[in-house]
Amino acid sequence: MTPMRLTGLSAFPITPADAGGRVDGPALRRLVARSCKAGVDSIGLLGSTGSYPYLTREERRRALDATLDEAGGRVPVMVGIGALRTDEAVRLAQDARAAGAAVGLLAAVSYTPLTDEEVYEHVAAVARHSDLPLCLYDNPTTTHFRFGPELIGRLSRLPGIVAVKSPGQEPQAVAGHLATLRATVPPGFSLGYSGDWTTTEALIAGADAWYSVVAGLFPQVAVEIVRAVQRGEVAEARRLDGRLGLLWALFRHYSSLRVIYACADLLDLCHAAPPRPILPLGEEARGRIAEVIRGLDLR
Amino acid sequence: MTPMRLTGLSAFPITPADAGGRVDGPALRRLVARSCKAGVDSIGLLGSTGSYPYLTREERRRALDATLDEAGGRVPVMVGIGALRTDEAVRLAQDARAAGAAVGLLAAVSYTPLTDEEVYEHVAAVARHSDLPLCLYDNPTTTHFRFGPELIGRLSRLPGIVAVKSPGQEPQAVAGHLATLRATVPPGFSLGYSGDWTTTEALIAGADAWYSVVAGLFPQVAVEIVRAVQRGEVAEARRLDGRLGLLWALFRHYSSLRVIYACADLLDLCHAAPPRPILPLGEEARGRIAEVIRGLDLR
Repeated sequence: MTPMRLTGLSAFPITPADAGGRVDGPALRRLVARSCKAGVDSIGLLGSTGSYPYLTREERRRALDATLDEAGGRVPVMVGIGALRTDEAVRLAQDARAAGAAVGLLAAVSYTPLTDEEVYEHVAAVARHSDLPLCLYDNPTTTHFRFGPELIGRLSRLPGIVAVKSPGQEPQAVAGHLATLRATVPPGFSLGYSGDWTTTEALIAGADAWYSVVAGLFPQVAVEIVRAVQRGEVAEARRLDGRLGLLWALFRHYSSLRVIYACADLLDLCHAAPPRPILPLGEEARGRIAEVIRGLDLR
Repeated sequence: MTPMRLTGLSAFPITPADAGGRVDGPALRRLVARSCKAGVDSIGLLGSTGSYPYLTREERRRALDATLDEAGGRVPVMVGIGALRTDEAVRLAQDARAAGAAVGLLAAVSYTPLTDEEVYEHVAAVARHSDLPLCLYDNPTTTHFRFGPELIGRLSRLPGIVAVKSPGQEPQAVAGHLATLRATVPPGFSLGYSGDWTTTEALIAGADAWYSVVAGLFPQVAVEIVRAVQRGEVAEARRLDGRLGLLWALFRHYSSLRVIYACADLLDLCHAAPPRPILPLGEEARGRIAEVIRGLDLR
């Protein structure tokens, strides 16, 4: 596979699995096929929404193999390779490289709080020992480590570090955030964002990529937004995004992961529950979600 | 082993291991033997200082077996059984019960941020399926979940939940914190604290237990403080604690885990490094630490 430039829309599916953490390959393939068919630019397998830290190395490899097979080389696959230990992250990156993933998504998973120097050495070791292009995964809500611009700048100069996935920014802050990062990274380094309810403004401000939870289940609406921005139709992109306001409100209230599991179940796409201790949402929440996806005609 | 009441001093050793995460049994036994010989009331194996989340189930069992053998039934052993997945925490609790641990120390390890209900169900499942007495481990700095008094109160009414290990409180706040918890838990439920630089005041205020990093390497000074409080010699306890001020400053600045690894190395007790990505402290920090332990005559 030719080196991938992370641009446009990356779809982050859940990873359907049973209560023991065994991945449901056919269900995962159904989700990946939906996103590919809708025309996403890449699959972001085993992101936080894909509950990567809850799955064993073996199950992560099974999920990757199924996804690569389903994507068929037409849609590049980025895969989460984060782990608490450096040696484990190296092994996961080597697995991903051997399987044929285009990029590894590397979060600074922590228990003992980490210093910048520790994360620098962690990322450098994974890059050095895997030869897999890497996207830095800045997700302070889950990892409790924040990649500052100075660290991103240093890491962006290492061979193989090609992108950063930043957390969602407030609309009035995203242009400044992008400018700060652009000033620290080499030309061609991809700057992308997650936090679906913030990403339309990020794309309009010039972000390279949207790392999208909604595109892992309802890819069509996300593709339409991204293509509108790419055509320069800013008002249309904002209209499409605004239409999803009730869904974004659910994402913010319950977390996008919990909402998307409920959506997949309600639509009969798969009936997996998130890994325990994360609980499926209760009946009241499911009722509200059902109403919103019906009202928005999401399917 | 008869049911253990968590009181007095619990010593939390590091878990010496090689770069691949294989536990060094003889080195661990040396640390455990020091603490037992000094007269600690229990061993707190595989706490955060014991880097439990970085070790496999097999290595955690090896560490526990070595410690139980070294403690020889004379000093009860509490062992960390925390894990990201509920089923894994259940298996670790079952292992601990089968091996002969007195209590399991259960943290709310998280990646996806957890709700109170999720943590309640997680703890209840571990208690139900293991029949191991449990100490709740409230460590927001590492797990990013905070056990509030209401949740502690609910959990303390479940069979087998016997104690809580709370994070260190400011001196002026600890009496209030203790009173709030006392009002929510049944009589006999043990309330203890970590954060070595805060625990003398917690004991003076009436806490049942000190979960101590320093006692995992330098048990003598910690035993003296606890016994002084138990004899009602508050001024003496404060004097002994005050004498350790320079050590507490290092703990706060570099983290107690990093400092204790350096101390163990400097004293030739063991030459393990913390699990990567955590880095050993550099030469400057080691120099400061060497000076402090020499000045305090710690050995």
